[in-house]
Amino acid sequence: MTNKKEINAGIIVIGNEILSGRTQDTNTSTISEWLNTIGIKVMESRAIPDIEKYIIDTVNELRNKYNYVFTTGGIGPTHDDITAKSISRAMGLIYGPHKEAMSILEKYYKSGEFNEGRQKMAWMPTKANLILNPTSGAPGFNVENVFCLPGVPSILKAMLGGINNKLIGGDPILSLSIKLRTVESEIAQSLQIIQDSNQKVDIGSYPFFKAGKLGVSLVLRSVNQSDINNCAIQIKDMIKEKKIEILEEI
Amino acid sequence: MTNKKEINAGIIVIGNEILSGRTQDTNTSTISEWLNTIGIKVMESRAIPDIEKYIIDTVNELRNKYNYVFTTGGIGPTHDDITAKSISRAMGLIYGPHKEAMSILEKYYKSGEFNEGRQKMAWMPTKANLILNPTSGAPGFNVENVFCLPGVPSILKAMLGGINNKLIGGDPILSLSIKLRTVESEIAQSLQIIQDSNQKVDIGSYPFFKAGKLGVSLVLRSVNQSDINNCAIQIKDMIKEKKIEILEEI
Repeated sequence: MTNKKEINAGIIVIGNEILSGRTQDTNTSTISEWLNTIGIKVMESRAIPDIEKYIIDTVNELRNKYNYVFTTGGIGPTHDDITAKSISRAMGLIYGPHKEAMSILEKYYKSGEFNEGRQKMAWMPTKANLILNPTSGAPGFNVENVFCLPGVPSILKAMLGGINNKLIGGDPILSLSIKLRTVESEIAQSLQIIQDSNQKVDIGSYPFFKAGKLGVSLVLRSVNQSDINNCAIQIKDMIKEKKIEILEEI
Repeated sequence: MTNKKEINAGIIVIGNEILSGRTQDTNTSTISEWLNTIGIKVMESRAIPDIEKYIIDTVNELRNKYNYVFTTGGIGPTHDDITAKSISRAMGLIYGPHKEAMSILEKYYKSGEFNEGRQKMAWMPTKANLILNPTSGAPGFNVENVFCLPGVPSILKAMLGGINNKLIGGDPILSLSIKLRTVESEIAQSLQIIQDSNQKVDIGSYPFFKAGKLGVSLVLRSVNQSDINNCAIQIKDMIKEKKIEILEEI
C-alpha cells in the first residue's frame, strides 16, 4: 500500500458570539468529521472576533500553512458580517457584486424583495467560485485554497456535500475505539511503550465518567488498517495481562 | 463613570480529539462566560493538536498578546498528555515533580496506589502556583499569566472558582438580547446606522430558526449600562417604525 501525501487543513470560526460564550461552536467538529472521511486532517481551529485585522491575519497565516482553509460565519447581510470583504483584502482581490451570486439571489427572492441588505450577500471577491446553498439561497465562496461557509450549522451542513469534488484528499483516516473499565494511570506506562513501537498509529487516551463509573476510551487513528490492527493486538495483550474489562469496541 | 482598561484573554484547547471531530469542545464557552462575569474579554480561542511545537508556539504567541492565557487539556497521566512539559519548555522553566502537588496526590490516593502514572500528574514547572481540583485530586497550575486546566469539562468547571482571586478583571461586560420576528436583511441597513452612532456598544445580529419560524437575535454588549440603554431605545424606535414584533427581551 502506497500512502498519498498527508493533506491538511485549518478552520477559522468567525464571530464575537463564539468568544462571548453566547453560542457554542459546533462547526469545527462538523467540518473535521467530514474532512476525515475524505482524508484531510485538521491541524488547528481558531475562533476569532468580527474584526478585520484578525480575519486578514488569520486567513493569510493559515492559507500559507495548510493545504486548505475553511472559514465559517460572517457572510450574512448585517454590519457585523465582514468576512467576504476582509478575505478580499487579505488576498488582494476585488470585492464587489458577484454576477452569478446576484443572479441566484434575484431568482431566490420574490420580485421587489431583493433589497440592499440581501444584495450584500452577493458581494464577495468578484472572481470567486460559488459554493451553492441548497437551503437558504445565499451562496458561500471559494478562492484558491480558501472556502468560506456560513455560520448557521444547519445551512453549513447542507453545503458541505457541494465542495467534495473541489478537494483533493489523502487516504481516509481510519479509527478504532476501545472502551475500558479502568483509569488512565493504570495503563499510562504500558500505553507509552505501545505508542513508541507504533509510530504510524496515533493513540489517544480519554477518560470518561458515565453513570457514576470511570472508564477510558482509547482511540487508534491511522490511514492504514493493518497498522491499527497490529496496534490493537498489543493493546489487547496488555489489557488481558492487567485483567481490565473491555466495555465496547467500535 | 470611569472605565478601567480593557482586560483580555486567549484560550488554547489542546487535544487531537477536538480536531478529529470526536469530541465537541465546550470548554471555550464555559471559560468565556465565566471571564465575562469578571470583566475579561476573550479575543480568540485556538484548538491545537497534542504536538509540542504547536503548544510552545501558541502559548508563546498568546501570552505576549493577551493579559491572560487559559489552556485546557493534556495534563493527565498518559503519553498524549504533554501540556505541562511543553509549557515548561515554552517558558524556559524547570519541568519536574512539584512538591505541593506530590503531597496533595499522595494524600488523595490510597497507600500503594500512588503509582508512576499518577505521579506524572504532579510533574509541571516546579515553581508553578497550583490550581486546586476539588473533584479529582490532580491540580492544574499557573505560571505568570498562563493558567493550565484539565480538558474534562466537569472537572474544569469545578476548578474555575479557585482562580477568581488570581485575576484582575475590568468592568463586567453587560449585555441585552432582543429577539425579533424578522429576517436580517430587513433590518441590516438601519442596524448599520445605529451601530455607527453607538461605537461603545457591540451589536451582534444572529439569525435563528426555531419551530419552523425565522427570527433574529440582536445582542448589545458594553461595559456601560447607559450606553446599552441608549442603543436599545434607538433599536426599538427602528423596530416600531418597521412594525416588527419583539418576541423576547433579556
